[in-house]
Amino acid sequence: MKMDRWRASARRILNLSSHPDAAPRFAPNPARRGIVASGEQPRSSGSLHCSGGSCRGTQCCFGHKQPLSVHLQEREFALGASLIQSRCFGSMATKIQRNPKFATINSDDIRYFRDLLGEKNVVQDEDTLLAANMDWMRKYKGSSKLLLLPRSTKEVSQILKYCNSRCLGVVPQGGNTGLVGGSVPVFDEVIVNLGSMNKVISFDEVSGILVSEAGCILESLVNFLDSKGFIMPLDLGAKGSCQIGGNVSTNAGGLRLLRYGSLHANVLGLEAVLANGDVLDMLGTLRKDNTGYDLKHLFIGSEGSLGIVTKVSILTPPKLTSVNVAFLACTDYLSCQKLLLEAKRKLGEVLSAFEFLDEQAMDIALNHLEGVRNPLPPALHKFYVLIETTGSDERSDKEKLEAFLVHSMEGGLISDGVVAQDIQQASSVWNIREGIPEALTKAGAVYKYDLSIPVEKIYDIVEEMRNKLGHLARVVAFGHLGDGNLHLNISCPQYDDAVLAQIEPFVYEWTSKTRGSISAEHGLGLMKANKIFYSKSPAAVQLMGSVKNLLDPNHILNPYKVLPQSLSSP
Amino acid sequence: MKMDRWRASARRILNLSSHPDAAPRFAPNPARRGIVASGEQPRSSGSLHCSGGSCRGTQCCFGHKQPLSVHLQEREFALGASLIQSRCFGSMATKIQRNPKFATINSDDIRYFRDLLGEKNVVQDEDTLLAANMDWMRKYKGSSKLLLLPRSTKEVSQILKYCNSRCLGVVPQGGNTGLVGGSVPVFDEVIVNLGSMNKVISFDEVSGILVSEAGCILESLVNFLDSKGFIMPLDLGAKGSCQIGGNVSTNAGGLRLLRYGSLHANVLGLEAVLANGDVLDMLGTLRKDNTGYDLKHLFIGSEGSLGIVTKVSILTPPKLTSVNVAFLACTDYLSCQKLLLEAKRKLGEVLSAFEFLDEQAMDIALNHLEGVRNPLPPALHKFYVLIETTGSDERSDKEKLEAFLVHSMEGGLISDGVVAQDIQQASSVWNIREGIPEALTKAGAVYKYDLSIPVEKIYDIVEEMRNKLGHLARVVAFGHLGDGNLHLNISCPQYDDAVLAQIEPFVYEWTSKTRGSISAEHGLGLMKANKIFYSKSPAAVQLMGSVKNLLDPNHILNPYKVLPQSLSSP
Repeated sequence: MKMDRWRASARRILNLSSHPDAAPRFAPNPARRGIVASGEQPRSSGSLHCSGGSCRGTQCCFGHKQPLSVHLQEREFALGASLIQSRCFGSMATKIQRNPKFATINSDDIRYFRDLLGEKNVVQDEDTLLAANMDWMRKYKGSSKLLLLPRSTKEVSQILKYCNSRCLGVVPQGGNTGLVGGSVPVFDEVIVNLGSMNKVISFDEVSGILVSEAGCILESLVNFLDSKGFIMPLDLGAKGSCQIGGNVSTNAGGLRLLRYGSLHANVLGLEAVLANGDVLDMLGTLRKDNTGYDLKHLFIGSEGSLGIVTKVSILTPPKLTSVNVAFLACTDYLSCQKLLLEAKRKLGEVLSAFEFLDEQAMDIALNHLEGVRNPLPPALHKFYVLIETTGSDERSDKEKLEAFLVHSMEGGLISDGVVAQDIQQASSVWNIREGIPEALTKAGAVYKYDLSIPVEKIYDIVEEMRNKLGHLARVVAFGHLGDGNLHLNISCPQYDDAVLAQIEPFVYEWTSKTRGSISAEHGLGLMKANKIFYSKSPAAVQLMGSVKNLLDPNHILNPYKVLPQSLSSP
Repeated sequence: MKMDRWRASARRILNLSSHPDAAPRFAPNPARRGIVASGEQPRSSGSLHCSGGSCRGTQCCFGHKQPLSVHLQEREFALGASLIQSRCFGSMATKIQRNPKFATINSDDIRYFRDLLGEKNVVQDEDTLLAANMDWMRKYKGSSKLLLLPRSTKEVSQILKYCNSRCLGVVPQGGNTGLVGGSVPVFDEVIVNLGSMNKVISFDEVSGILVSEAGCILESLVNFLDSKGFIMPLDLGAKGSCQIGGNVSTNAGGLRLLRYGSLHANVLGLEAVLANGDVLDMLGTLRKDNTGYDLKHLFIGSEGSLGIVTKVSILTPPKLTSVNVAFLACTDYLSCQKLLLEAKRKLGEVLSAFEFLDEQAMDIALNHLEGVRNPLPPALHKFYVLIETTGSDERSDKEKLEAFLVHSMEGGLISDGVVAQDIQQASSVWNIREGIPEALTKAGAVYKYDLSIPVEKIYDIVEEMRNKLGHLARVVAFGHLGDGNLHLNISCPQYDDAVLAQIEPFVYEWTSKTRGSISAEHGLGLMKANKIFYSKSPAAVQLMGSVKNLLDPNHILNPYKVLPQSLSSP
């Protein structure tokens, strides 16, 4: 009887495929630019801004002419003889002062860079600079007067050597799709965009090892590999704009981490340029290499603050053809958690995604996304889980999924569910999960937190936050449950310091108590640099500071970011 | 017809199961202590020596009373007023001098350690010290007079703080199963064995995350996890002795790397004690944590030279029940290579091992291992490939493997082959692959090289070496083809400097030219510390030296190892 019910509900999804926006998710060359990265970044209709190449300077993807939320104030005040700039970010943020040791750009600098790079690669044009100074959410805005476009590692090296000797701050920039203000200047730092270094260097079809320049756009690598029968081990909504060098520098997570692991697992080698211009060749193309300290890991996830990644060697998995998607309802969080364990056991090697959303998330998606219908009508369920399998044998994968679903339904873990019958249906249910961030921005102001929390405790913080906020705001939860990654979003009509004071530092303190991470995949950037102690021990942060001093003694690389202010000036 | 032939040969393997030594490989609690780690370490009948606990001080696993090969000479000569010790390792090795800055142990030191650790944990007993001073191959031998057995991180911290203040050299030691002389003293360094820190701290059955002390023996963790339905992501022949802290410190590879990746992929957190006694808590239990530099990676694979790992958090995969093994013959190396590509595509997510051996390796196994018979008689084939699949659905996995084999045979990639019908048969073919190192030691003297080389070039070095050596020696090749890891072994009646001069530095230079690694999984230890430049750029090695200076300014931790002599003294 349960199976009948299952099958009955499975038929419902057929209606979804008629949605006009149901873009194919699993097409050979998936044009899935609009699908969301981390579950936090709203869908774009194509390129975001400033990724180098033809899309530089395009508008914000939602066509907003004004910032969605400007938390930024700029002040200048006299201190002795010199002007000291400082900025505030949000009500809870610390004021940041421009490092007075940094020089400012002068005409000699411009002349040097023009001689080095050629006139067109030394950008002072206001419109282009405006785009490069602002992050894609339009939340953070710098005031750099100079954007450089190197075409080779040698040029990057010479730029950094010069900036270091002049003590000019530098912001390495890829696709500028980050969410924590890490990829734009805070003040007048020189922007070094890697977009012109966008060549595939080599691909080994036996080992699946790809070597490319750092400025390659993720999607162009995806397309290149597709023609060879391979895939990238990471998949992000921002793939139409983000660059592989930026992905590596921020240790981007995304949708395939559950299956293929993080970039620490998949990046085999790097080339990076240090602050003094030294080129560090760690561009190995080997799965195994135990010769000395594995220094490349220092550059993975250090957000450009230790060096500029110029080349990347990455292990790519073969493309598998059989993809199945199920969208399920659970009555409580414990069932979601048990279902995850069951999925790991029963689906084993074919499990490729285990995402979850709660009733509030579904409600907001249904009310604010165009063309989205409730896949499990009529009422809302307390929790939803999206499961994807990817394998090499369609029949056996389907059987495996079906056996798992029957077993889980009989065990009472699932209360309802549908299985997508084709690409369009799969895309439709993915669109619900991935559309939540967009729905949230449409619903009003939103405070976003990207947390890693032990799976069994993930929903506790959501409930505690709800109790704490009462009617003040709406607490929406979704995320990569398979990775223990919760995207906690607090939605209210407008930004309100009283609400924020209820949320912070509570959310960070709570996360810290569970030994969770206050940034699962977004990084620290400018937004959370001073929050690092919630997730890292003082001794570890101190050592990070020592490593920074060792590699970038003048602290010219991505200043004011990643490390707390107490350590961020030399 | 080809399928008939296939089936005909498949029946042959039934004979193998009658071998008396056919130990079950896939038993629920596999007592596979005797199976080999990296393909380089001969099988032991149980514990190797000095892993802490009850097996400390046991004899070499083969019962040799004398070293298998002693390449070590000890000399003392007067230099001014003080005695300077120096040692030579092999004909091609550099002479190493004891760092004159190091103090020697005195009675005050002993008193301090006894007060700190209790008398029984301060070992000066000659027999125990003899075992702890010698590596398991009996190739490297130190002359330490002191072995310490801390029971807590705090004790490790106090030991190091004291040794650092006294400038006493320290060798961190786990199971002492390494192959490059990394785990034994060179001179009189204090041995700190982690074997008494052997508790499982926590296990999360939802996420599969295990936290344990560093001294846990790998096999005890395997057994613990087995009862929970999980496995360790690494499997080594030395698992009956090696400790997880040592595995992490050496970035041990082994048999599951193809499927689950290296320890950089699976270790989620660490606790390490620095040379000055500072405890670095990086013991995260999260799959995703992008808060600052991921410092734990510095300690993975640095062979105890940057800190002593005291606790480990590791992601463990669920245990899958369906295991299949095929043993195949190929006529040339190109077919092996193409077969690997096919296996990755066709077996996809269930492929768990792809090992290879050549005709010489099979010949030496058949002639020197007891009870091993040719699985594909009558003649020898040029190449053999062992393929293992591990999945969650027996029927579908078998079908997938069969379809792959039929396709590969029809395509001419396989000339003959057998599929194991049960655990005993699977074990029998694994025993051939894993018995080669033991067979080599029985055949005479052997020069061993553990190389990572791009897969398409792996066999070129074997053929070039054969041409170079002619009748002087026998060149035997086998290894983890799926990982690009060749174990190149040169077998001759006795050690011969004329032979060695033909091999080195040729083998290192050749590997370096292909951007390969001169140590895929064994590490550098003492044996290859000075060879690092063959695989790492001068700038990278220089930075390693700076990191060493930062973390261990007195260079007390595992002196003379990993980094070249030019950098190994402060």
